[in-house]
Amino acid sequence: MSFTERVKRILSWYASESPGTQTQIARLLTTGELAGTGKLVILPVDQGFEHGPLRSFGTNMPAHDPLYHFKLALDAKCNAYAAPLGFLEAGAAEFAGQIPLILKLNNSDTLSKVEPCSAVTGSVDDALRLGCVAIGYTIYPGSELRNRMYEDLRELTLEAKAKGLAVIVWSYPRGSGLSKDGETAVDIAAYAAQIACQLGAHIVKIKPPTAHVEQAEAKKVIEKAKIPLATLPERVRYCVQACFGGRRIVIFSGGAAKGTEEVLQEIRDLNAGGAFGSIVGRNAFQRPHDEGVALLKQIIGIYKQG
Amino acid sequence: MSFTERVKRILSWYASESPGTQTQIARLLTTGELAGTGKLVILPVDQGFEHGPLRSFGTNMPAHDPLYHFKLALDAKCNAYAAPLGFLEAGAAEFAGQIPLILKLNNSDTLSKVEPCSAVTGSVDDALRLGCVAIGYTIYPGSELRNRMYEDLRELTLEAKAKGLAVIVWSYPRGSGLSKDGETAVDIAAYAAQIACQLGAHIVKIKPPTAHVEQAEAKKVIEKAKIPLATLPERVRYCVQACFGGRRIVIFSGGAAKGTEEVLQEIRDLNAGGAFGSIVGRNAFQRPHDEGVALLKQIIGIYKQG
Amino acid sequence: MSFTERVKRILSWYASESPGTQTQIARLLTTGELAGTGKLVILPVDQGFEHGPLRSFGTNMPAHDPLYHFKLALDAKCNAYAAPLGFLEAGAAEFAGQIPLILKLNNSDTLSKVEPCSAVTGSVDDALRLGCVAIGYTIYPGSELRNRMYEDLRELTLEAKAKGLAVIVWSYPRGSGLSKDGETAVDIAAYAAQIACQLGAHIVKIKPPTAHVEQAEAKKVIEKAKIPLATLPERVRYCVQACFGGRRIVIFSGGAAKGTEEVLQEIRDLNAGGAFGSIVGRNAFQRPHDEGVALLKQIIGIYKQG
Amino acid sequence: MSFTERVKRILSWYASESPGTQTQIARLLTTGELAGTGKLVILPVDQGFEHGPLRSFGTNMPAHDPLYHFKLALDAKCNAYAAPLGFLEAGAAEFAGQIPLILKLNNSDTLSKVEPCSAVTGSVDDALRLGCVAIGYTIYPGSELRNRMYEDLRELTLEAKAKGLAVIVWSYPRGSGLSKDGETAVDIAAYAAQIACQLGAHIVKIKPPTAHVEQAEAKKVIEKAKIPLATLPERVRYCVQACFGGRRIVIFSGGAAKGTEEVLQEIRDLNAGGAFGSIVGRNAFQRPHDEGVALLKQIIGIYKQG
Amino acid sequence: MSFTERVKRILSWYASESPGTQTQIARLLTTGELAGTGKLVILPVDQGFEHGPLRSFGTNMPAHDPLYHFKLALDAKCNAYAAPLGFLEAGAAEFAGQIPLILKLNNSDTLSKVEPCSAVTGSVDDALRLGCVAIGYTIYPGSELRNRMYEDLRELTLEAKAKGLAVIVWSYPRGSGLSKDGETAVDIAAYAAQIACQLGAHIVKIKPPTAHVEQAEAKKVIEKAKIPLATLPERVRYCVQACFGGRRIVIFSGGAAKGTEEVLQEIRDLNAGGAFGSIVGRNAFQRPHDEGVALLKQIIGIYKQG
Repeated sequence: MSFTERVKRILSWYASESPGTQTQIARLLTTGELAGTGKLVILPVDQGFEHGPLRSFGTNMPAHDPLYHFKLALDAKCNAYAAPLGFLEAGAAEFAGQIPLILKLNNSDTLSKVEPCSAVTGSVDDALRLGCVAIGYTIYPGSELRNRMYEDLRELTLEAKAKGLAVIVWSYPRGSGLSKDGETAVDIAAYAAQIACQLGAHIVKIKPPTAHVEQAEAKKVIEKAKIPLATLPERVRYCVQACFGGRRIVIFSGGAAKGTEEVLQEIRDLNAGGAFGSIVGRNAFQRPHDEGVALLKQIIGIYKQG
Repeated sequence: MSFTERVKRILSWYASESPGTQTQIARLLTTGELAGTGKLVILPVDQGFEHGPLRSFGTNMPAHDPLYHFKLALDAKCNAYAAPLGFLEAGAAEFAGQIPLILKLNNSDTLSKVEPCSAVTGSVDDALRLGCVAIGYTIYPGSELRNRMYEDLRELTLEAKAKGLAVIVWSYPRGSGLSKDGETAVDIAAYAAQIACQLGAHIVKIKPPTAHVEQAEAKKVIEKAKIPLATLPERVRYCVQACFGGRRIVIFSGGAAKGTEEVLQEIRDLNAGGAFGSIVGRNAFQRPHDEGVALLKQIIGIYKQG
Repeated sequence: MSFTERVKRILSWYASESPGTQTQIARLLTTGELAGTGKLVILPVDQGFEHGPLRSFGTNMPAHDPLYHFKLALDAKCNAYAAPLGFLEAGAAEFAGQIPLILKLNNSDTLSKVEPCSAVTGSVDDALRLGCVAIGYTIYPGSELRNRMYEDLRELTLEAKAKGLAVIVWSYPRGSGLSKDGETAVDIAAYAAQIACQLGAHIVKIKPPTAHVEQAEAKKVIEKAKIPLATLPERVRYCVQACFGGRRIVIFSGGAAKGTEEVLQEIRDLNAGGAFGSIVGRNAFQRPHDEGVALLKQIIGIYKQG
Repeated sequence: MSFTERVKRILSWYASESPGTQTQIARLLTTGELAGTGKLVILPVDQGFEHGPLRSFGTNMPAHDPLYHFKLALDAKCNAYAAPLGFLEAGAAEFAGQIPLILKLNNSDTLSKVEPCSAVTGSVDDALRLGCVAIGYTIYPGSELRNRMYEDLRELTLEAKAKGLAVIVWSYPRGSGLSKDGETAVDIAAYAAQIACQLGAHIVKIKPPTAHVEQAEAKKVIEKAKIPLATLPERVRYCVQACFGGRRIVIFSGGAAKGTEEVLQEIRDLNAGGAFGSIVGRNAFQRPHDEGVALLKQIIGIYKQG
Repeated sequence: MSFTERVKRILSWYASESPGTQTQIARLLTTGELAGTGKLVILPVDQGFEHGPLRSFGTNMPAHDPLYHFKLALDAKCNAYAAPLGFLEAGAAEFAGQIPLILKLNNSDTLSKVEPCSAVTGSVDDALRLGCVAIGYTIYPGSELRNRMYEDLRELTLEAKAKGLAVIVWSYPRGSGLSKDGETAVDIAAYAAQIACQLGAHIVKIKPPTAHVEQAEAKKVIEKAKIPLATLPERVRYCVQACFGGRRIVIFSGGAAKGTEEVLQEIRDLNAGGAFGSIVGRNAFQRPHDEGVALLKQIIGIYKQG
């Protein structure tokens, strides 16, 4: 298929990568309802590992079935589906080739209270044998153990790129170096996004930033340069800027499940701020299937307007 | 191109290295406005990782774009451009071959309050595939974790040399072993430079040393041997001496952004003390492009006078 | 240095390669008198191995010294110097960084009468430690042993590209599959060039083709399509076309030593046909140094006119 | 060269080692003024790393130059020269083959106040490419981190022996397990020497022991067995005994710079006690070159008398 | 020991090699009676493998004992002793460090009538564990199987150099590509020497060339350039020239055992022609020990006159 100018433009930002890796990024950008728009809506389901099955799937029993999520992503015409090793293995054969897959390579349970650090629970070779387009990886800037996560990612990234895969990094500020408010502060969100980009990520996922500013030095710069950060669209716009002046794809997470209108208003704000899209998990799979599909389609509809 | 006597002289100090590594050192010494003089002005941009994008680029929005820095280094006719993996990947294809690149292999964010230690965020193979002439690496003498940094560097250095690359070490005293004043004390600066040289660095970068002396034993020697350290040129002269009697290239960082005249006076002092050059980051890219180019050209002009 | 439009255009043909490999191709295109023109004149000296020292250097005794050739290439401002392992090792330290080097990775002596096949006499790691920009490799399409040569090249090419080097293939039709006239026949020359391109070469070297057509099927097509091949410029033009429609660099060998005017006329014809340049060995180094330099400069002058 | 009976005798103690490793021990024993005597005087210069350049070289400026030390060892006809990676790299090509080299593989700076533990700053492969006869390694018995040092040494020793190198261990009691006096106590010195031998060292270096006895149990044994330890020769004699009944080479460090006569008296005592020789650093290189050479020659002269 | 100007000059030809490899070449040049002269007399004993024990040692029974040859080389003060794995293993411990050893890594028996090709019978790691300074390797230019020998050598050379050893190549033209007279023809001898140099050898061993010229093209060049080749000294002079203009060490074999005066006259001719020395095997060890020593000393005496 011939690509749209927008897709060609985005691919040009990754000219240092091999055609193989570029091909995988292109597959993400040319699948589903948003194909060709340069926008992405991805269904991620790592909450079974991160929060446990009861909290994640207890209110929507069929969502315990891994096939449920492949189908949800397909029915909603998402760009991709992301999950840890077990969930992907459980449906990768049945749905082979029907939707781009992203293997979440590290995950952290909530059964231990130590400084946050995810375990590497899958490998690049798993991603190849499951037919994935990308690996996913989470870093926790602000954790005392951040360096270990960065270093593991370094090795996985080198290998993934050598084998023609794309790299998606979830960058979630967390840990003893930050206040609770600081985890979603706009300066920290932008910083976390920047770190992921510097580590070689092709696509970065962050949380929608709040108006809080964590670092005194950042506050000074904001005032001096009069950077507008009062509204969510403004903050999103700066986070996109922080991702290499807009030359890296940055998408936003939806966070905990909430009311439909609340969700959609946030998406409208993200879109207004120039976000490349959203990762929507709990808000999609913690509703009954049809409602989940309907919500995802509304979200996709907003991004489609550009 | 035939080399100047000065370049040949400098290369002779590295006779133990392979012709491949010598070739890369030669590339650094024969590029840009200072080609052939034995002097170096390098543009480093790792602040996005080290200080975050807001503090680094917030006052000069276009500097969020990685291509900005490639162009800045080229327009100012610097000898090289140094950055972490992501920033280099974002422009290496577009600017392939136009300016020598240095891949900063480790980096530290400022989101965690633990004892200072950088994470290894890139690899020697990344440097090869991006066409770099050298790897860059930061050590923090004075940190409790210094040994880990030295040992990681040992492995990267061995690999880099085997693959025909040069090694540049940023040596920044920091950590619980030093007072705040000690971080830039002249005895500590010279010591940090010596450590980098002993670890096998070809080029060492330190901060301009102050007149403070941190160690009592050093104070005794200075008095006994009447080593003149009152002025910055004198202190620079000793730091050059500390780098193997002048047989290793030592360059100086510019530090936080400041006024133009202040910057230039410091460069004149560095040059007067026999510095091999400067690494100028924030003072260059936190100004508008044309002003940044102009300042770099003035700095280069000072070093060109010798 | 900023690149000319021509150099940028040529580099765009190699966009699938890593920035590292593109950097090396760029180095070849931006060195010496022809820097920036997209043209190349390379000095190759593998005749000591291929024909023996007496035949190669007996009429110009100083040419036995490996340093002679580094200096010849430098004095004539060639783009690069190509030689087997021993010749490069003998001068690589002394001339480190002064001229791009190409390590000829396979070579064939003329002491055995068996079917032609070169031995692999160097490695990609040798190329790295000697600071080379490219590996060189000879294939003999027409030899019964051609497949072994193609397969060895496949492995070396994969390794060279992974390590950020360029690949130059000498494609010389030879062996029991061809008549003596067929070795330089225009259809065979174009075929040999195409094979090198298909094997992944970035730069291809062939001999100037004669008007002879070896293959009956080729003859039919030439007549049917009325392809003009009567003159050398016409034949060169077709060979350039055969190299991926002009999207691969193809340069021509000079062959046995001959009179100056004869050499220059051939160069004019090659240039008129759109050749990217020449590899000139015996005609350069079998003359006294000053005459060799003068001839190379005249050749370079012709290509510089474009 | 045919060996003396003494050299043959010493080599017989290392019959379990490969001929390669024995060859390197032999090179140490057959070089310089003491060749053939079974005695060794080695110049070590790791103080640039261990104490910093100011304290080490500030009172003798030319000693900042790494070539100074190669020359000093040569002029004084020492058996070998030992230094960290950087100092050896800086002169190994220029002095290749002129004097046996020992690569100090771990080193510790004095910029951090943590429990003593040296960083591994070089590798066995570095020792091979620099043409060294042996690796050197420091252990700190008494440190909480001693086991890590012993375990790193285990791996380096295994590798060094497999590649035909000799192993020299600096054994310096230090750390929270010992009193300050205990660091040089005779029981501890002998214990530290024993540990080095048990770890597989071919040559052990310790400090001249004092009459202090650190461990109560040791004191009891000394009294019961009436072991004479009142004089330095007596204590040295016991330390030699502690090194496998005299079947391992044990040499002694000179410590901080002091007056010439003081140094020489200590050497006479060491020699009287049966020491195999000395490692003399600061007392040699902190004097002007000619005085350093003269002192080393006097020291060598004492050992030559046997 | 400080080196003579001649030794320093020779080492400068190998500046591309690591200090480790340079150290080994230096050991060859600074051992034995010819130490410092730049000349070499080496005892090689591979005839047990190549010709069988009866032909090799039957006329001098004690020469069956491997220790005999170590002692012979030592007593005659040769620069080195070269032999296959078994012979070296049988004496390497007993003579560790007493004389530089060269491990002949490939050997060919005379029990099969196939096209000549030696088997690889030892490894670089064997050379390290036996304490050798160099590996030795034989190539047969002219053999149909030459390429296999060149390619095996390529790998061994790369490994030997990486591990700090020197490489010595025996280059013996032989096989179906040559007439019997051609095996020692002057053009072929020079060609064979050149091939060894191009393959990366540090030292080349060839047979004394006869006045026969094998190749018609070579004959033409000799006549045209009036190269004097009538006498053995003239032919030796050209072969030295063929080895990179005299920048590689080339030594000559003695061939079958013959009368003392005949041997010495040949050595005088070699020396007059500028040979770097001789490898003398059968003429040394097929005489009784004292006569062998005496002959070697006479040979050494001739080279010592320069």
